[in-house]
Amino acid sequence: MADAPYKLILLRHGESEWNEKNLFTGWVDVNLTAKGEKEATRGGELLKEAGLLPDVLHTSLQKRAIRTAQLALEAADRLWIPVSRSWRLNERHYGALQGKDKAQTLAEFGEEQFMLWRRSYDTPPPALDRDAEYSQFNDPRYATLPPELRPQTECLKDVVVRMLPYWFDSVVPDLLSGRTVLIAAHGNSLRALVKHLDGISDADIAGLNIPTGIPLYYELDADFKPVTPGGKYLDPEAAAAAIEAVKNQGKKK
Amino acid sequence: MADAPYKLILLRHGESEWNEKNLFTGWVDVNLTAKGEKEATRGGELLKEAGLLPDVLHTSLQKRAIRTAQLALEAADRLWIPVSRSWRLNERHYGALQGKDKAQTLAEFGEEQFMLWRRSYDTPPPALDRDAEYSQFNDPRYATLPPELRPQTECLKDVVVRMLPYWFDSVVPDLLSGRTVLIAAHGNSLRALVKHLDGISDADIAGLNIPTGIPLYYELDADFKPVTPGGKYLDPEAAAAAIEAVKNQGKKK
Repeated sequence: MADAPYKLILLRHGESEWNEKNLFTGWVDVNLTAKGEKEATRGGELLKEAGLLPDVLHTSLQKRAIRTAQLALEAADRLWIPVSRSWRLNERHYGALQGKDKAQTLAEFGEEQFMLWRRSYDTPPPALDRDAEYSQFNDPRYATLPPELRPQTECLKDVVVRMLPYWFDSVVPDLLSGRTVLIAAHGNSLRALVKHLDGISDADIAGLNIPTGIPLYYELDADFKPVTPGGKYLDPEAAAAAIEAVKNQGKKK
Repeated sequence: MADAPYKLILLRHGESEWNEKNLFTGWVDVNLTAKGEKEATRGGELLKEAGLLPDVLHTSLQKRAIRTAQLALEAADRLWIPVSRSWRLNERHYGALQGKDKAQTLAEFGEEQFMLWRRSYDTPPPALDRDAEYSQFNDPRYATLPPELRPQTECLKDVVVRMLPYWFDSVVPDLLSGRTVLIAAHGNSLRALVKHLDGISDADIAGLNIPTGIPLYYELDADFKPVTPGGKYLDPEAAAAAIEAVKNQGKKK
């Protein structure tokens, strides 16, 4: 076993086609925009500049996270490191909201209901029908999961519950072996992990936003608790600006 | 266990920066050219058109093969499949020839010596000094290999010997589980595998060239022998033309 502190890097994918269009995405497998690709490359450059070179990569099964990792690792000249992928790192399933316009949804349902769906810890949106246009229920990438594991909607609490087994079983052993671990994932799967690491309450997690494309670096002690609560963004100024922008996202025209 | 025939797809990386410059590459980690990227994407489109969708990917530790796989899988919408990488799938180490111009080498050493280094089964080029400019002896991606496994030159026979353990231990179990396997690798690591699969003699393997970017599909029987000797290129006409071009490669001005 390696000595603590263990080194963990979290990277949220860059802008996706549906971020740009202001649609709820969830498990829909949209690609990065050109801007998102640049963010990913910049993320890798930040890693390289900081000398923080990942030894192993964990991603979701969604291409916006997979490609973000590919572009970042290419920029850091670490394309060759081992990779593991899991649906447990996927974005929160947004239920019946998947494919809907955020501003229209806000207008239709009002701010209270809108913010409840977006930020409540334990209230999921309505379930998405298995055969709906934006359902992934029959996507071949989930074919090996028993149906009861394939979500039709999720609240953040659901994400915590399905993400943590992957953290404990697949990521922690890599940290224990002394590897610098990169997790390239999504706004809500990373919020779920940060909630766990930093011991953030169910209420307070609503106020936490993780910016896209900026590596968030955690040193973890022997109990896998952050040496510095909240970790450290490799570009703190850009992170602060981006967090502010995300807070206003629902209010776009 | 799945029933035979097992499904195996071999994909040689597209044109690299040093293919374009006509330099011996070996273990030097050069990138794809824009043409090589297009070849890779086309390879993925051929897989998709044929309905041959990989369930698992095996690559070398070299970016030209890794990126070829990424681009092909993106085109086939299979970026999410599990990936394993190994130095055992790397290109042949070209020893002291790495970084040298092929036409100059031909002119300097004469056709007999040149063809011996390029196509002899068991005569490696001179060893590359550990500290030479184009040595990978201290590359971090090989840091976990004991020094005696880090080559300083290789003949094709050496590649067969180091590649086969990966075939038996990592690829065959995936085939046995019924998965369609994609191996994205290099001219010589794939020649080594094809030699094994098709039972090609040490003499005859000299005449075998595998074109870049065109998936080569093998169905394998219960003994992991090809149902159709030599397999089947997904674009047979392009493959035939490319094989002809490779034969003339050393003779470029």
